[in-house]
Amino acid sequence: MPRSITAHSNPLIKRMRLLRDKRHRRAERLFLAEGLRILTEAHDAGRLPRWLFFARDTAEHPLVRLLVADVEKAGGEAIETTPDILSKLSGKDNPQAVVGVFDEFGVALAAIDRAVSPLWLVAERLRDPGNLGTILRTADAVGAGGLILIGQCVDPFSVEAVRASMGALFTVAVAQAEWDEFLPWLRAGPGQLVGLSLDTETDYRAARYAAPCFLLTGNEAQGLPPDYAAACDLRVKIPMRGKADSLNAAVATAIMAYTVSDRLGR
Amino acid sequence: MPRSITAHSNPLIKRMRLLRDKRHRRAERLFLAEGLRILTEAHDAGRLPRWLFFARDTAEHPLVRLLVADVEKAGGEAIETTPDILSKLSGKDNPQAVVGVFDEFGVALAAIDRAVSPLWLVAERLRDPGNLGTILRTADAVGAGGLILIGQCVDPFSVEAVRASMGALFTVAVAQAEWDEFLPWLRAGPGQLVGLSLDTETDYRAARYAAPCFLLTGNEAQGLPPDYAAACDLRVKIPMRGKADSLNAAVATAIMAYTVSDRLGR
Repeated sequence: MPRSITAHSNPLIKRMRLLRDKRHRRAERLFLAEGLRILTEAHDAGRLPRWLFFARDTAEHPLVRLLVADVEKAGGEAIETTPDILSKLSGKDNPQAVVGVFDEFGVALAAIDRAVSPLWLVAERLRDPGNLGTILRTADAVGAGGLILIGQCVDPFSVEAVRASMGALFTVAVAQAEWDEFLPWLRAGPGQLVGLSLDTETDYRAARYAAPCFLLTGNEAQGLPPDYAAACDLRVKIPMRGKADSLNAAVATAIMAYTVSDRLGR
Repeated sequence: MPRSITAHSNPLIKRMRLLRDKRHRRAERLFLAEGLRILTEAHDAGRLPRWLFFARDTAEHPLVRLLVADVEKAGGEAIETTPDILSKLSGKDNPQAVVGVFDEFGVALAAIDRAVSPLWLVAERLRDPGNLGTILRTADAVGAGGLILIGQCVDPFSVEAVRASMGALFTVAVAQAEWDEFLPWLRAGPGQLVGLSLDTETDYRAARYAAPCFLLTGNEAQGLPPDYAAACDLRVKIPMRGKADSLNAAVATAIMAYTVSDRLGR
């Protein structure tokens, strides 16, 4: 039976609000996700929040009822609250019907089975949470095995990244590793490392891809460091026909991911 | 010779700050763009700001000097100011070295020459400024003729859209029209209208594209209205192999744009 919280000063609300800050997420190993669509995606992927906050006027929505029942069955807590507090939790003016607080998860590099998919996405020093979430969404759509984050990337559990992923955070395996761990791991098994680069003459359409293919995208502003690019089996570029010299990182990743997927006969 | 403004209360600063609000942009027919990269892109595309704000410590940067000289030559005003005021103008904590205030521009649908490019991008009810800017950036990179915005789209002159475009706002022709104007205009000449849709069996890779091809992307949450989709010559879908049912709108547009561009032999 859900309890009700209507006071902003409630200690649980205060604590949950702090999860919008990375430091607190790290300390608590918890993160926020909002919206019926994303929470239903999580539910269907077998992930239930420890705490589920919902507004009274949505309590009768069938998906909210299902979430409440399953959260309580799993030992979590469902809490009825006000739209205003939901706004405070998510940091958005128009609050979603539901906000969930989940345990952080993640995959260790060593636990990845590269045989499960012919395509893997790898991003290094990605800075924009919207780009990270969008790449997760693309990874899900293209059927990639997962996303490997290299070096100092933006936190995949940030509210903005989770939001941009539209729930793909819950369905796509995410690993975080340093380059010095990643490269030996990659080379310990089969795998073609393909780097997106501006300093190559190889058109992405002219290249030959091989499974499992690991698509490496660099930092939004700087691209790949030269030694990372040099370590790739293949460097490809997407032709730029206008005044600009690059595409958005999530866009370039998606063009490559769908092209490689097509070439690998999927 | 640049004048200097250091007071937040300066009426020009107050007026410029208001341009972050759409209502004021519409009334003034002016907009803000920030950053040396974007302003240099604008300069190279022949667009100079009416007012150029720069921080004293960047006054000696060669690109800033060039901008200041050319703005003054063109009858605009270059104004030295503080990092703090630059922050206030752009709404960002880390201010860019320069902020420009430009006259709004745009292309009338009737003035578009569809023969200049085999590919045009069309978006309807696009809501996210980041998506709009990213699509502009893609339009530039793929060499599209321009972007046609249909119905109630987010403002292409918003600070966020200009920022996400990385300067492509200045290099890509942007037209705004209602669907009821667009469709007769399109049908008055050659043009294949291709709609991105989830309700079709046609894989985007199996379709035949013809120049000039007009790629139509729908609203982020709802996709294309059924009657818009029905008016297309071709409806295609990008296969979804995961749990999610769609890609980010800017990502889907880019995958399509590069595929069509490739198929049209570019």
